[in-house]
Amino acid sequence: MQIIRNRQTLIDAITEQKKSNKTIGFVPTMGFLHEGHMTLVSHARKENDCVVMSVFVNPTQFGPNEDFDAYPRDEAHDAKFAEAGGVDILFIPTVEEMYPAELATKLHVEKRVSVLDGADREGHFDGVVTVLTKLFHLVSPNNAYFGQKDAQQVAVVSGLVDDYFFPVNLRVIATVREQDGLAKSSRNVYLSDLERKEAPVIHAALTLGRNLIEAGETNESKIIQQMTAKINEQTAHEKIAYLAIYSYPEFTQVTDWTKGIIIAAAVKYSKARLIDNELINVKRR
Amino acid sequence: MQIIRNRQTLIDAITEQKKSNKTIGFVPTMGFLHEGHMTLVSHARKENDCVVMSVFVNPTQFGPNEDFDAYPRDEAHDAKFAEAGGVDILFIPTVEEMYPAELATKLHVEKRVSVLDGADREGHFDGVVTVLTKLFHLVSPNNAYFGQKDAQQVAVVSGLVDDYFFPVNLRVIATVREQDGLAKSSRNVYLSDLERKEAPVIHAALTLGRNLIEAGETNESKIIQQMTAKINEQTAHEKIAYLAIYSYPEFTQVTDWTKGIIIAAAVKYSKARLIDNELINVKRR
Repeated sequence: MQIIRNRQTLIDAITEQKKSNKTIGFVPTMGFLHEGHMTLVSHARKENDCVVMSVFVNPTQFGPNEDFDAYPRDEAHDAKFAEAGGVDILFIPTVEEMYPAELATKLHVEKRVSVLDGADREGHFDGVVTVLTKLFHLVSPNNAYFGQKDAQQVAVVSGLVDDYFFPVNLRVIATVREQDGLAKSSRNVYLSDLERKEAPVIHAALTLGRNLIEAGETNESKIIQQMTAKINEQTAHEKIAYLAIYSYPEFTQVTDWTKGIIIAAAVKYSKARLIDNELINVKRR
Repeated sequence: MQIIRNRQTLIDAITEQKKSNKTIGFVPTMGFLHEGHMTLVSHARKENDCVVMSVFVNPTQFGPNEDFDAYPRDEAHDAKFAEAGGVDILFIPTVEEMYPAELATKLHVEKRVSVLDGADREGHFDGVVTVLTKLFHLVSPNNAYFGQKDAQQVAVVSGLVDDYFFPVNLRVIATVREQDGLAKSSRNVYLSDLERKEAPVIHAALTLGRNLIEAGETNESKIIQQMTAKINEQTAHEKIAYLAIYSYPEFTQVTDWTKGIIIAAAVKYSKARLIDNELINVKRR
């Protein structure tokens, strides 16, 4: 595995691969790798000749009061995991390398963002599409891998790719969970023992919602009410940031319960905010 | 020469070229081709294995009161010119093909646009970078060719490419002129006989400005005054839309007269608005 820190070296390495018509699979990450990321890598490994992973904690997708500085970083761990997973090129740029100058042209996401994480985190998705546009141009991937856990991000990135005809195929991979159902996340390390013990209730509540909908329930507030009650059987969390049901991938109010639906949750713990979701009637891309 | 009208056919043709490591030169145009465009093509022809030209009158770069509907179109003429110039692939998409859906993510240019054509044409450069982002992704050019005549556009597109690490080399080609100095333009056909006879005064005024600066004049308003007087010796034009001197490529007030400078003019005639410029102390990219 080659570790690359600057853009030109990456471009040269990719150009070399492309010359011999190798396909490129790309797994963009913010590092602190866990099995969730490695599942993306294992799909990329199967489906491409060359696997590129980026580890970059992107400042533009963090709000002023968010955890950019505190976001966990562990390069040695990441390099070990990436190599073990079969990554060929690990790109670890500095902030200066990715943002050498103030942008003259800005990207602004206008759809699918006024709800859930977008509502809570103004400018978050602008930062996401900005860094992905840069990374897609540097890596020129045939396939790029995203986790379904960030379902809204997937919807936004699909929009970006469709809008601007990016020559990349998005591969969306099912959420990887701990044995007890908790979605794997870099932020899980911030949970206290009690919080960690209770956090699987998020997935349990989403599953309850799914079961209700699949059993024919179409009273949205009734479903939300039961899910809320389920989570609040536990006590360690600070609050439910959101618990919502939308059409997917539009993120508008559900009118047809036989079409794509997302149930999404974000729960705030003392030092972590966890998200999870369930998709219903959605075929993976 | 292959004429292609839909995106997937274009992508397939480009993929075929890339497989055998052919380099792609790209000349984006709005059609109604004249020698100015063909000079770009002839550079592209010399420097690349495969030359792609697009002919697309891009609605998003026209303001509501501008000449989108009236902009001249002549596909038969364009195809003949393109083929004669050595274009391999002529891409002529419809508006629906380039804008199949309302954009979820918007591009907005924030720098280098509040002056000259940007000041006069709100949103114009947003439309330019939007369509170029789409076209760059479809064509994947190694080199893309732009005329220096649209100097502000060149500065904006350079900013876009630099900001987002587009894997394309911008080639900026000197303005092609009629014998009497008038910059070639698709809009010249709208000039009346008298207007056409007088229009070379734009270039003459810019040359006067250049000579003054090169002779050491640093009094900006004095230079502008003399250039204005020069143009107003003629009578057929409606008005001077702007006549301005800026640092280049920053488009800010000149403080150092030994560095890059642009003198730019836009003159309004009854049915056409013509632009032209002179660059001083600027090495072409």
